[in-house]
Amino acid sequence: MPILVMKFGGTSVANLARIENAARKVQAEVDRGYDVIVIVSAMSGETNKLVGFVEGTSKLYDAREYDAVVASGENVTAGLMALRLQEMGIPARSWQGWQVPINTTSAHGAARFVSIPRENIEAKFAEGFKVAVVAGFQGVSAEGRITTLGRGGSDTTAVAFAAAFGAERCDIYTDVDGVYTTDPRIVSKARKLEKIAFEEMLELASLGAKVLQTRSVELAMRYKVRLRVLSSFEDTDETSGTLVCDEEEIMESKVVSGVAFSRDEAKMTLVRVEDRPGVAAAIFGPLAEAGVNVDMIVQNISEKVAGDTKLYTDMTFSLPVNQVERARHALEASQGSGLSYAELITDTETAKVSVVGIGMRSQVGVAARMFAALAAENINIKVITTSEIKISVLIDRKYMELAVQTLHDTFDLDRV
Amino acid sequence: MPILVMKFGGTSVANLARIENAARKVQAEVDRGYDVIVIVSAMSGETNKLVGFVEGTSKLYDAREYDAVVASGENVTAGLMALRLQEMGIPARSWQGWQVPINTTSAHGAARFVSIPRENIEAKFAEGFKVAVVAGFQGVSAEGRITTLGRGGSDTTAVAFAAAFGAERCDIYTDVDGVYTTDPRIVSKARKLEKIAFEEMLELASLGAKVLQTRSVELAMRYKVRLRVLSSFEDTDETSGTLVCDEEEIMESKVVSGVAFSRDEAKMTLVRVEDRPGVAAAIFGPLAEAGVNVDMIVQNISEKVAGDTKLYTDMTFSLPVNQVERARHALEASQGSGLSYAELITDTETAKVSVVGIGMRSQVGVAARMFAALAAENINIKVITTSEIKISVLIDRKYMELAVQTLHDTFDLDRV
Repeated sequence: MPILVMKFGGTSVANLARIENAARKVQAEVDRGYDVIVIVSAMSGETNKLVGFVEGTSKLYDAREYDAVVASGENVTAGLMALRLQEMGIPARSWQGWQVPINTTSAHGAARFVSIPRENIEAKFAEGFKVAVVAGFQGVSAEGRITTLGRGGSDTTAVAFAAAFGAERCDIYTDVDGVYTTDPRIVSKARKLEKIAFEEMLELASLGAKVLQTRSVELAMRYKVRLRVLSSFEDTDETSGTLVCDEEEIMESKVVSGVAFSRDEAKMTLVRVEDRPGVAAAIFGPLAEAGVNVDMIVQNISEKVAGDTKLYTDMTFSLPVNQVERARHALEASQGSGLSYAELITDTETAKVSVVGIGMRSQVGVAARMFAALAAENINIKVITTSEIKISVLIDRKYMELAVQTLHDTFDLDRV
Repeated sequence: MPILVMKFGGTSVANLARIENAARKVQAEVDRGYDVIVIVSAMSGETNKLVGFVEGTSKLYDAREYDAVVASGENVTAGLMALRLQEMGIPARSWQGWQVPINTTSAHGAARFVSIPRENIEAKFAEGFKVAVVAGFQGVSAEGRITTLGRGGSDTTAVAFAAAFGAERCDIYTDVDGVYTTDPRIVSKARKLEKIAFEEMLELASLGAKVLQTRSVELAMRYKVRLRVLSSFEDTDETSGTLVCDEEEIMESKVVSGVAFSRDEAKMTLVRVEDRPGVAAAIFGPLAEAGVNVDMIVQNISEKVAGDTKLYTDMTFSLPVNQVERARHALEASQGSGLSYAELITDTETAKVSVVGIGMRSQVGVAARMFAALAAENINIKVITTSEIKISVLIDRKYMELAVQTLHDTFDLDRV
């Protein structure tokens, strides 16, 4: 039998009625002839409740015990889903991480997969079971302790099972009906994509389109697992949602697939930094130690200052707006000891807008079209960074919506 | 190190504050020099919530999945208790059934222990851990599925661990501070017993004193595990509560240790049943099939009826009052086919009162003193049954409190 992996997130199994709804989607795939592996999250709110218990018990908690407590939410959903499927006449069995076993590293709270042996679940399929319901987000360490995978762990579990079992596809059921060219709340003409390449999805995921966690997309790309994102709350069939796949599966790709944005960005500029080898490390080392997530970095050309033989430059970087104070503190503490600058300018009113598309690789002039479109709207660009398939700009936050709409129009994203 | 087992029920771990309170009691025992095995129930209300989920999902639920869902409540408490102990500086580790492993039969929902290997927990004690926190009420089958033990399963887990580890004692922390000579709500002079013999506790447990489950007392008796019942909510020390132990540990035992009662009893009498071999089976077979819990049984002497050569008798039995209709239905359905009687008399206004004491074995005249005391209060006895250490009578329900008070006085139970 071909294998299909289906994953249901917390809102998709939030109560017994929604578990029943999800079970009907599983039934449809069994009827289509699949042996199905279902990955479930905890009922929404449950994990937060358990985390609250742990944090209320112990401030510097032992990650092993944290994992043992927090993983129990998924176990409940797995059992209930198996029961609901049985009630529909479908032979189903629940699987906790240790029963599969889902072998992981011992990095509690952020464990990584070591192996997922197929034997136990395949034996049940051979007995006539049609569905294996697996508790997501968890595994078991070599020491026999329960581990959890960290944020987005259930998506990652689903992709890992699809890779281990050679599944035909991995369907991620969630509360949106697919991946859009941009956020429909900002651009009403935003269009659902039928297909998107792994690389594009990765850029969109890390840029703030919260449909899939970066790590699960990375894993899918590495093992070429075809991912489908679709809605738990609508009638769906085999063409619903968005397929995240290898770019070879995408016949005719547009130059730009989507416009992403990130609203709460800040920009910091160190003015008149001495330009000598090691200066970047002197700046970004302390920031990394302070846990600041620096994103875009721009270094101006060097210049001389009158009456001084040294070379000077300005260094600009972007970061989440809520990390500005931490960054300022780290830089001021480094003043004098290896780092000197004349001034630190902070702008907390910026946003990042990006266009993403694998078509850029073979098309020239995309950046120029983007800059021209923004200029036509009098939107000033503060920082630019580019990658093979992405161009990002930092702009004043008040122009963010306008920039997204303009770029969506410029690259014809409302049309197929 | 000597081993102590401590068990905390659902109300004793109902919230984080109570878990902390329980952890302090564990700390006191660690300070006394014990390696401690703590058995925990689910936070009160959690198991019912999970059972509600299962019953809301599937009417004829698969007991394997029921167990997988319901056992998760104890896992949460075990992790939280381990965290709380760590927070107090005590090296502690949580254990789920499969991690110990607690090997059980595959009788899901009512599994029985097969073995509890000591190796894994002993290895942790050898590493310097002082406490093993074990999720009660659960185990793992030979098939690798999670099992649960049924009602009172956490008490039974505690006793089984005490037996397997040769614990010095098994302390059952609960919401009462010990075992009383009778219910203090009925007899204000009821006295807490310092010690009680296993056999006596068994009779009291099955007669409705709800402190300990019958099965855990049976197991304790078989393996000579000294059980102590004491309060979670009071300051306790090594002399608190009631010790349930072998009768050899009880130096000077009174002839009667306690007065038990059961309020909602009914009495049924089959009048003029033909007295021939097999008649008892003809009556109690159908009742058993109908799920009626017959308790006391009395058969009158046979007599002849005028104009008939056969022998006849009256057969009386007691049963829970809420099973009367079921019993009547079963008996009426058997009328004619192997069973015949002239009349079925039902009395739903009765109660059972019992005196229990291992001292009865060596003392004569206990029954006579009991009957005389009841007669002095004009309480009519409807049925009597006796065992080696117990005498039970069925009386009108309206006299139940009076009977309990009278017997408590008669046997001087308020005095040590």
